[in-house]
Amino acid sequence: MKKINIGILGFGTIGSAVYELINVNHDMIEKRLGLDLHVSAICDVSPNIEHPLLVRDARDVINNPAIEVVVEAIGGEKPALSFILAAIKKGKHVVTSNKEVMALNGDKIFSAARKNNVSINFEAAVGGGIPIIGPLSHDLLANNLTEIYGIVNGTTNYILSKMTKEGTEFEAALEEARKMGYAEANPKKDIEGYDSSYKAAILASVAFNSQIDWKNVYFEGIEKITQEDISYAKEIGYIIKLLAVAKKYEKECEVRVHPTLISQEHPLASVSGPMNAIYVKGDMVGELMFYGQGAGGLPTASAVVADIINCYNVQCPISNFQFRKLKVKPIDEIESRYYIRLTVPDKHGVLAGISKAFADQKVSISNVVQKETIGKIATIVIIIHQAKEANLRKAIARLEKLSVVKDVCNVIRVGL
Amino acid sequence: MKKINIGILGFGTIGSAVYELINVNHDMIEKRLGLDLHVSAICDVSPNIEHPLLVRDARDVINNPAIEVVVEAIGGEKPALSFILAAIKKGKHVVTSNKEVMALNGDKIFSAARKNNVSINFEAAVGGGIPIIGPLSHDLLANNLTEIYGIVNGTTNYILSKMTKEGTEFEAALEEARKMGYAEANPKKDIEGYDSSYKAAILASVAFNSQIDWKNVYFEGIEKITQEDISYAKEIGYIIKLLAVAKKYEKECEVRVHPTLISQEHPLASVSGPMNAIYVKGDMVGELMFYGQGAGGLPTASAVVADIINCYNVQCPISNFQFRKLKVKPIDEIESRYYIRLTVPDKHGVLAGISKAFADQKVSISNVVQKETIGKIATIVIIIHQAKEANLRKAIARLEKLSVVKDVCNVIRVGL
Repeated sequence: MKKINIGILGFGTIGSAVYELINVNHDMIEKRLGLDLHVSAICDVSPNIEHPLLVRDARDVINNPAIEVVVEAIGGEKPALSFILAAIKKGKHVVTSNKEVMALNGDKIFSAARKNNVSINFEAAVGGGIPIIGPLSHDLLANNLTEIYGIVNGTTNYILSKMTKEGTEFEAALEEARKMGYAEANPKKDIEGYDSSYKAAILASVAFNSQIDWKNVYFEGIEKITQEDISYAKEIGYIIKLLAVAKKYEKECEVRVHPTLISQEHPLASVSGPMNAIYVKGDMVGELMFYGQGAGGLPTASAVVADIINCYNVQCPISNFQFRKLKVKPIDEIESRYYIRLTVPDKHGVLAGISKAFADQKVSISNVVQKETIGKIATIVIIIHQAKEANLRKAIARLEKLSVVKDVCNVIRVGL
Repeated sequence: MKKINIGILGFGTIGSAVYELINVNHDMIEKRLGLDLHVSAICDVSPNIEHPLLVRDARDVINNPAIEVVVEAIGGEKPALSFILAAIKKGKHVVTSNKEVMALNGDKIFSAARKNNVSINFEAAVGGGIPIIGPLSHDLLANNLTEIYGIVNGTTNYILSKMTKEGTEFEAALEEARKMGYAEANPKKDIEGYDSSYKAAILASVAFNSQIDWKNVYFEGIEKITQEDISYAKEIGYIIKLLAVAKKYEKECEVRVHPTLISQEHPLASVSGPMNAIYVKGDMVGELMFYGQGAGGLPTASAVVADIINCYNVQCPISNFQFRKLKVKPIDEIESRYYIRLTVPDKHGVLAGISKAFADQKVSISNVVQKETIGKIATIVIIIHQAKEANLRKAIARLEKLSVVKDVCNVIRVGL
């Protein structure tokens, strides 16, 4: 069992979620990996934060020799950069969710980490909890990755989705995003494309194995998109999304962020509301998409804590199964909704008999629709509320014997 | 530079694609990771395969002391299992794309690998090239993963998609799948759900960190789904998919495969044709989806070669950037299609002037639509063929000065 002392810099949405995650899933992680994650200190200067572990000076975290991993969850370039570099210099691994500091200072931070032989992990900087830095830098290593298209900002995607689905104008959609907590009081960095441009620079750097200078990333925001543009685009089969685009050629690349008309048929078109997705093309793997919640405390903490774990070369759980035999429920015991297609003679009294067969097994009908009638045979489709499979099967067995039922043609489970 | 000698067992679709991938991307992988991947021997018993590295007896691969990694790409339980166990016993890492052998014998194989201190990697066994075993076992380690819904069989998804989109009956759709190469001559294992059930057992084992016995996985295939079911489901807002379902409770779980009515709004509903996707819920990360090509030689080889690399604790490329400064193209040099919205006076000669402004910059118009006219002002939407941004901007600057143009309201790039 290895105990890992962690210091958290910044106790806002992400910092406090990291603390919460470690508390909630501590035992599971310990049991699975043999790592005892332990938050030793939290630093935040905001006067309205109170916590038994709270310190007010980041040096009390950075200079604490017991702390092995520093989580930087402050955001923004300053003072995060100097704290990250100081922690690295002290030989600590650093995990950050900060896209801005990584996009603007990746080269400085990487070379400091190499020099001091520590890890700098930043999965949470792009796509919140969506695994994307990991897949790009491990699982897809055998590929020449050539194209990335990302919806990487939840605020702008929420606004564009609302404009698209409800015909709202930009200002009203922004106001709604604020109310829903998807936009900050000052949403400039999201709306004008800064946030996406940081993420574009990071994605391109990792995918293309090159240091992409953020200053060379062209970006536009969504503030000029009107309802007219959205409607006209829709008429010709397109939807407007704020896309981070990165393409690699032999000796150069493109990295840019701007509103883009994309085909309604493209998998990215169905990524709506505050969701994020990153679409990737590789020469071998073809096209991939990674989809999920791109922001929020706990999803982002999921990535931060995985990054903490990844600072240690713990044995992969696959070859380390606990071999606890989790019991698999027999199919009879599962609960599901069901779709049932029957044929019945087209006469009175049919539904009463069918309903009783279900009711006797405590299986409750949600919906019955009579479909086409051919000759004297009618097709009926029944939707069943959540029921236990064993009871459903008994009801079906009963139905099959009823004189008012010609055939039970199909029974299909309903889910999702 | 470390040279890694690889032996490939089975030189069909996947084995030959692994060989091809290693040839094509050898130098890139070497440069990036310092690993010199080298195929030393290929074993296949099929009489119509010829290759300079070919041997006919698997023992010539397994007993070759120079070979460090054995790729098992034979498929099926026998003789793959005995070859895998023999290779492990000889102290070789094993990478396999074989879902059947992993689902039926995971416990034996894992315990042999642990005993002999070698890796057994099987990313390619589920979802082809889609990173899913990696994310579940690394990137999502901080989560209690509770639900998985996978479209993990391309043959059945192709058939169901065809039935849904084109109104085809099952037999005709299967015939088409055969013609397109998406179904084997004997498609029993795909159609009847065996293939998906193997993958369900593997996904549940990895996600729930437990050994799920395949014999307890309930499964049904798609052979009973008719066009009627598909149409009736559609009428009530559902689409039918063959889903691998795994759910975890406190002390037990569900692992099952069956056709399922899922809401047309769910992200899995838009996974069509031969594509695969795995939808995952974790207590912290919320909902994720991993989408891509679930089969095919090169996509699967992408996963196999990543697994070969993962047998070695090579430094992650993120902290190992080559820092080659890939030039980022200035925005002026990119090429794109464009959407342009203009307002113009509603009179003759307008289009001639606009067309000339574009033609003078060699920018070619794909489509012009006149939208609403308010008073004497008409809105025009123009779609531009692929053009260089610099030329487009010159054309726009020209337009803005034309007396026949009132306003250039918006210019948005068109992509995907």
